[in-house]
Amino acid sequence: MTDLPSHRHAWRLRRRPTGDIAEGDLAYAAEPLPALAEGQFLLKIIYLSLDPTNRIWMSDMEQYMPPVGLGDAMRGGVCGRVIASRKPGVDVGQLMAGLGEWADHIISDGTAMAPMPMLPGLSLAAAYGTLSLVGPTAYFGLLDIGQPKPGETLVVSAAAGGVGQIVGQIGKIKGCRVIGIAGGKAKCDFVTSELGFDACIDYKSQDVGAELDRLAPKGIDINFEQVGGDIMVEVVKRMNLFGRMPLCGLISSYNDLTPTEPPGFWTMILMRRLTIRGFIVTDFMPRYAEAAQTLAGWMLSGQLKTRQDIRPGLEHAAETVKALYSGSNFGKLLVEVSPPD
Amino acid sequence: MTDLPSHRHAWRLRRRPTGDIAEGDLAYAAEPLPALAEGQFLLKIIYLSLDPTNRIWMSDMEQYMPPVGLGDAMRGGVCGRVIASRKPGVDVGQLMAGLGEWADHIISDGTAMAPMPMLPGLSLAAAYGTLSLVGPTAYFGLLDIGQPKPGETLVVSAAAGGVGQIVGQIGKIKGCRVIGIAGGKAKCDFVTSELGFDACIDYKSQDVGAELDRLAPKGIDINFEQVGGDIMVEVVKRMNLFGRMPLCGLISSYNDLTPTEPPGFWTMILMRRLTIRGFIVTDFMPRYAEAAQTLAGWMLSGQLKTRQDIRPGLEHAAETVKALYSGSNFGKLLVEVSPPD
Repeated sequence: MTDLPSHRHAWRLRRRPTGDIAEGDLAYAAEPLPALAEGQFLLKIIYLSLDPTNRIWMSDMEQYMPPVGLGDAMRGGVCGRVIASRKPGVDVGQLMAGLGEWADHIISDGTAMAPMPMLPGLSLAAAYGTLSLVGPTAYFGLLDIGQPKPGETLVVSAAAGGVGQIVGQIGKIKGCRVIGIAGGKAKCDFVTSELGFDACIDYKSQDVGAELDRLAPKGIDINFEQVGGDIMVEVVKRMNLFGRMPLCGLISSYNDLTPTEPPGFWTMILMRRLTIRGFIVTDFMPRYAEAAQTLAGWMLSGQLKTRQDIRPGLEHAAETVKALYSGSNFGKLLVEVSPPD
Repeated sequence: MTDLPSHRHAWRLRRRPTGDIAEGDLAYAAEPLPALAEGQFLLKIIYLSLDPTNRIWMSDMEQYMPPVGLGDAMRGGVCGRVIASRKPGVDVGQLMAGLGEWADHIISDGTAMAPMPMLPGLSLAAAYGTLSLVGPTAYFGLLDIGQPKPGETLVVSAAAGGVGQIVGQIGKIKGCRVIGIAGGKAKCDFVTSELGFDACIDYKSQDVGAELDRLAPKGIDINFEQVGGDIMVEVVKRMNLFGRMPLCGLISSYNDLTPTEPPGFWTMILMRRLTIRGFIVTDFMPRYAEAAQTLAGWMLSGQLKTRQDIRPGLEHAAETVKALYSGSNFGKLLVEVSPPD
């Protein structure tokens, strides 16, 4: 066994952000690492996953699990290697992924952690970045709730983001016409040229409503919604009879001081018989293996391409996460906490 | 063959109502009945079904079938007896039900019409009033979309109305705790004492939110929504994780000059993973027989009681239909156009 660290570095939540995450909301510091108890193991973190939901966990808004407590280490998805273990069945050298903390080392009893398989032909960043969270989110949200059929029109917002890029490609695999919405020409070019989307609307320079009219003259069958706000309104207005809307996120409002909801479209939901369903990927936990196997198969066969936006340095995480809310990330946002070897 | 009428009485739409239906929006008059062409039959109407959707059809708001054209006979559900036929397979004396017109006689080629079975032990009003429209609406909306499970809490608005009374009773058959919302003590007493609802909130004299807190302290799993407006808001606020909301109607806004939608609850839909699904009973047309058989079985066994509010006189139909929007009907609203024999 190598020398074990006596300390770790971690981010703790000091106060709940009001609006944008500000200096001092989270604090980064060294702190002692206690000795492992029986049944625990020590994980050296390689990648920290930064996700839109992080901002929700920092707040005390209505949410789907308890918010991070003030003074607690910030919660986050992590992937790392076991460097010490007192837990039977968990061996030193093993890769593990799950729900952890913004830290360079984590002591875990295995709760919300699972072995991370290495897939020949895929980098750890691609495998972890895709299969742990955003891939299953796209998979279950689009297939179970969206129920895409060949020839249907699918719109996906945040198209170049971690989930969006996968949603669009699964849509293409299922025979849909796929229209992305993303911020900036580079992202739009990426999802059309590299990922095979049929079209992409640059919400920063184009009129989303007018472009949707042009690109989806027969209306929209599936809206994979991640953003909310005015962009969502333009999409919902154009939904077809029996349209489906997997509601995956509303990132445009997560930093709002007084969140403004898009208006209700109750009459439209009734008259067009729309289905709106909110979901969180953990709802589908019992079926993760199905998603991971299918997604890995598509990745290995070249049908599913993924892009990660890997930023070095745990110490920058509180700054890095802001990229999600400004839209300046390009692909699944990961912090490289230590080298993947 | 008896002497056939040379004229009929019918209501025609003269102008689209603005707000409440007003004198002169619809006109009642005698008009010549043409001779039957090959493939047609003549139906003498017994019951005209008055339904919330009638007001939608009079308007040019977004809706699920074309609005009634100006000058056209008003559309409505009807049940009647064939008194002349030039259509093979349709015999004089046969009872038929389907989508017709506000008239005492209708010439039909059979489109949107089906034979109406007489069920021993049920009056024609109970059978037609329940099995033709409101019963299947309640059946598919609650069972397919609401997916009730034993022990869950179901709220149904317009609880004493045609659909609501059946929704609540199916909810009880499925083991739910059922809370109705209705206007007035008589309706509330009826659904609890006669129909077996667990509780009923009188929105005219009680604070709906406070009563929901008291009666559903663990929250609401299914909201069978028919009303919209402030009452809907109070119910939606209290929905549980993974709650379902069959959206069947929004009657409180149908007469609005500038309809105000209830606000969007997008964050709540996401965080609580709610399913909101609009539907119209005709979406389930291929499965009508399933609903009718099951409902008739429950009626004959006494598990499902129904109440009709039968008003005489086709000539009063334009006044009678207003009862739906003021909430002064008590049970499924039917106009008796001619005696059922």
